[in-house]
Parts: sequence; structure tokens; C-alpha cells
Amino acid sequence: MPDVDIQRDLLMGVDLGGTKILAGVFNSHVSLLSSNKISTKAERGYDAVVERIARCVKDAVDEGDYSMKQVRAVGVGAPGAVRTETGEVIFAPNLQWRQVPLKKDLEKYLGVPVFVDNDCTVCTRGVHEIEMKSRPRHMIGIFLGTGIGGGLVLNGELYLGSQKTAGELGHMVLEVGGPKCGCGNKGCFEALASRSAIFRRLELEIKNGAKSVLIDYVKEGGKVSTLRSGDLRKALKKGDKLVELVIKDAARYTGIAVANLMNLLNPEMIVLGGGVMDALEDQMMPVILETAKAYAMPGTAKGVTIVASSLGDNAGITGAAALARKGVAAIKE
Amino acid sequence: MPDVDIQRDLLMGVDLGGTKILAGVFNSHVSLLSSNKISTKAERGYDAVVERIARCVKDAVDEGDYSMKQVRAVGVGAPGAVRTETGEVIFAPNLQWRQVPLKKDLEKYLGVPVFVDNDCTVCTRGVHEIEMKSRPRHMIGIFLGTGIGGGLVLNGELYLGSQKTAGELGHMVLEVGGPKCGCGNKGCFEALASRSAIFRRLELEIKNGAKSVLIDYVKEGGKVSTLRSGDLRKALKKGDKLVELVIKDAARYTGIAVANLMNLLNPEMIVLGGGVMDALEDQMMPVILETAKAYAMPGTAKGVTIVASSLGDNAGITGAAALARKGVAAIKE
Repeated sequence: MPDVDIQRDLLMGVDLGGTKILAGVFNSHVSLLSSNKISTKAERGYDAVVERIARCVKDAVDEGDYSMKQVRAVGVGAPGAVRTETGEVIFAPNLQWRQVPLKKDLEKYLGVPVFVDNDCTVCTRGVHEIEMKSRPRHMIGIFLGTGIGGGLVLNGELYLGSQKTAGELGHMVLEVGGPKCGCGNKGCFEALASRSAIFRRLELEIKNGAKSVLIDYVKEGGKVSTLRSGDLRKALKKGDKLVELVIKDAARYTGIAVANLMNLLNPEMIVLGGGVMDALEDQMMPVILETAKAYAMPGTAKGVTIVASSLGDNAGITGAAALARKGVAAIKE
Repeated sequence: MPDVDIQRDLLMGVDLGGTKILAGVFNSHVSLLSSNKISTKAERGYDAVVERIARCVKDAVDEGDYSMKQVRAVGVGAPGAVRTETGEVIFAPNLQWRQVPLKKDLEKYLGVPVFVDNDCTVCTRGVHEIEMKSRPRHMIGIFLGTGIGGGLVLNGELYLGSQKTAGELGHMVLEVGGPKCGCGNKGCFEALASRSAIFRRLELEIKNGAKSVLIDYVKEGGKVSTLRSGDLRKALKKGDKLVELVIKDAARYTGIAVANLMNLLNPEMIVLGGGVMDALEDQMMPVILETAKAYAMPGTAKGVTIVASSLGDNAGITGAAALARKGVAAIKE
């Protein structure tokens, strides 16, 4: 009965983060139809989070007036190391997970095939396969958010390296002896240009007497570091000099990271994404482009396109849906 | 007459540098039989250098009591951007060459097929294909000499990127605002750990009053920067504290560069070569290993081998001979 098969043409993409779960319903061409977002509540433990992912998926389906019977497969981007063959999450520090069978457990809840991969790999897949239609043979994805992650497409394929951990560009040291990073080292790209790094510096400068409208945005007794990227954009619009300076510096470091990657890998395209880029693209991109050009070797910058991703926060769910499509195709073969 | 063919089984490898030309005679398994070295004399211009390369090749053949009639092909590693299909050198700043048909001109002198590629790519080929017998699927070559260059083997193949300029790891910025680099930027790996960087710092420290035995090695009226890597080894043996400090710092920067590359590309193997490593391996390797381990992400360092190349100064001619072998095989097909 081929009719049954024709109906099961929806793909789900899940972006599992340390603080939120985003689920999207996509058609077979990986265009977004509807989505849903809930908080992760990682502190409630693994079983509770699995149940929440399943609920988030079902609610996204319901939100678009679809039925789970129409869903062919689910893809998940998880924040950590993943054994893709089995869908186990080996280690996810933000969720405090170690060796959990996420694919198996989610399949029990959802009754459809689930495919799991690392979140940065999934975002890079979304940008490369869907946004760029698999055109660039060599592409680097850089995602600026709470942390900084990335992914590499080399010779037309996602490149993962020998232990499948490649793409950790957030921990490229750019400034020996620079600010401390969450990884324990100093001067990593992530410690210089992530949202956490930007807010840490803003908080310090304000503590040391610098003036900024950000203080007005903070709730009574709250901290500057609890604000969002959107608040920075608002402050910039009001001509806040401190925010301008700090964002410009973060963009300069990003430009140097881009140049390092251009010199090393000579890609066709570098795509910048993530929440920080989404909120501050207009302010950051000109500085990133100018710095990258200044630091790239002659000849290397030629023919390289540096762009902001248009997928914004949806890069993760888009890539996860593309992962689901690939997983289904592999089963068919 | 197959006998004639059997005799033509020697491969030549040429390492063309800004100051010296090294030529080696190899058997068909790319084992070195004899070699010869002369100065480049780049200031005499392109035609004179081509004649000198040809002479150096012929003298290496004669040195081993062979005849040019036994030579099947010649490979050349040139210090710049190369169009490998035509064997043109597009740009070689140290030689002041632009768009020169090196393959064509050398073939006129030598009467055998010549194959040309970039020197760092050729060194990486030598290390990967000959020293490591093509075993590592993902390998990074880092060559510390007057400058710092590198090459990448990803998925078992030399990776060159979209414009074939990949591998410029010497210009990876490690210290924003650090020492000035020959490329015009500041804080590049090359400006922190190359032979030039090491001697620049030693000269400055001595000028500022630091004590070192190096002064005794300098000829009347000469400069510390005219000394060689071997003089540093000698100074270390005498317990020279200044040289010890400067070499340790260079090794630390190298370890950070190694970690950046491990985090980004998750290779199986990183091989360090070049004149500086050749002379100072014993002093530098322990610091490089310790630093790389400290800066690598957990999980990434696992299973990665970091070693010094045993080819030393012969990495270039070995890789060039392997290039010649590949070129001949491609003609046969």
C-alpha cells in the first residue's frame, strides 16, 4: 500500500541544548513547517530530559496540525560527543550525561527512527546541505553562541577526523595568556568572542566604572551577565560606547580566527552563525571581513566567501532534519 | 627493448630553497642513494638558478657514480605557489619569481620529465608516503626552519583546499599583538617559533644585557642572527640559560599550535620536521608534548601520535622523489 508510505513524509529536527530544546517539523525537502521550544531542565536528569524531548517533538507536530503518523524520522543534534552508529551520547558536559542510549530511548517514546549527531556537526550540515545546497566543496561553519563551536566540510563531505572530534575551533588559542576559558586554558577563541566572554568583559568594565545603558536593562539585584544578545543590539542602537567597543573587539578576534582557518584550510566559504551573529550581524560582519582580509595570506583570501548564515537559530533543527533524511535514505538502501 | 626501461629506475628529488639547492638520487622504492648541495644564488636571476638546479642534479648523479641515462624523472619542491599541472611557479617571494615555467625549462636541461610542487606539500608527502608508509589517514606536517610551513593529509590524501594554498599554519595567529611577522601581521606562529624568531629574540635579549655564550660564536663584526640552529644546540650543552629560556618558549608556542591543530582537525598523527627540529629535537619535544597535551580538548589528544620526523633535512628531497614517482605512474596510465 504505497499510500501509507506517501503520507509518512515529514522529517523532524531537534536541537538539544543545555538550556532549551527546539523541535521543528520539516517537509521532505527540509523546509520548516512548524516548530516548538521548551526549556531542557537538565537538572531533572536524563530520563526527564528524554521525556521532554519527546514531548517537544509531539507538540511541534501538533502545533502545525500534523500527526505523528506522518513523521518518517527524527534527527537530533546533541551538545557533546556522539557515537553516531548507535545514537549514544558518550559525554555531554552541559547535560551531565555520560554513555546514554538517546536514540534507543527516544525511539521508544516516538515510535519512529531517531538519528543523533553532535550539535555543531548538525548545524554545519544544515548550513551546507540545506542553506548552501551542498555547493561549496570546502566550507567552514563557525557558530557564536554561549560557547563557540564549528564544523568542517572538506572535499564535499563533513570532516570529523580520526576520533570524530574535529571542528573544535572554539578552543583555538588566539591570545596566549589571554582571558581564562571554560576549558581550563587561556586565550581560546571562545574566551574572547562568545556571548559568555562578551558579557564577562562588559560586567568587569562596568564594575570598574565604565558607563553603559545595560545597567538599566538589568532587573533589581540581577547581573549584566544574565542579559541576552538582543539587549546588546538595543544598547548599540542607543549609541552605547562600551558595548560598541566590546562587540568590536569580539568581532576582531572572530576575524582573526576566520583568517587562521582560511590560511590553514583554504576553504571556498566560511559561514558564521549562532545566536550572537544572529543578533549582531550588522555590527560584527564589517569588522570580521576587514580583519580577516588583513590577516589572510595573499592569494588565500581570493575567491573565499565569508557570510552570515540566514538560518539563525534554526541551523540546528534544519541540520537535524537533514540528518533524519540521510538516516532514512541509508535504511532504504 | 625492456632492458633499457629497467635501467631507467632512478628518481631525483630536488629541494629548492631561498639559500640552498639540495638534490638527491633515489632508487625506485624512494631510498636515498646519494645527494648534493649548492647555494641557490637567487640574486643572479631565474635563468641562472635553473642552470644551477640542473647542475646540482647532475652532480648528485655523478657523486653516486650513476648516469643521467638511469634517471626516470625529477621532482622539485619550490618555495612558493605552484601550478602543479603545468609545473609553473606562480609566485616565490624568496626567489623573486613570478610566473616562471620551471618544469619546461628544467626538462630542456635534463631531458627527463620534471614535476614541480610547493615545498611544504612536498615535505609532507615525503613524511607521509615514505617515512610513515602512507599509514596515517589524517596527518599534519609542521616544518620549523627559517620560516614555518606545513601540510595536511586528510582522509589519506594531501589536502590543498579550493585555491591549493591550504597548510599555511605558520601564519596562524597565536598571540594577538605579539611580535611582528614577515607577512606584515603580528603574533603569527612563525613570528614566535621559527629560527628567525628565535634568533631575533636572542639578539634583542643580548643587546639588552643578557649573557650568553653565543657571543663567542659570532665572527668579528658579525651578528648573533647569522648563527645556525646547531650553535644553539652547542650553547645548550654548555648550559646557556638564555638559549634555554628562548628555546623553551619557542617549544611552548609550538605545543600550543599543535593543540590548536589537534582540536581543529583531530588527526591521527602530527609530525614535526625542519632544521630547527632536526637540531633541537631533544630539547623541544618534551615541552611540545607537555604543552600540546595541556591545551588539547579532552578526548581529542587520545590516540594522537606527536613525533619528530626522522627525515630531517631530507624530507624535501624524499618527498620530491615521491612526487617524481607519482608523476611517472600518472604518465604510464
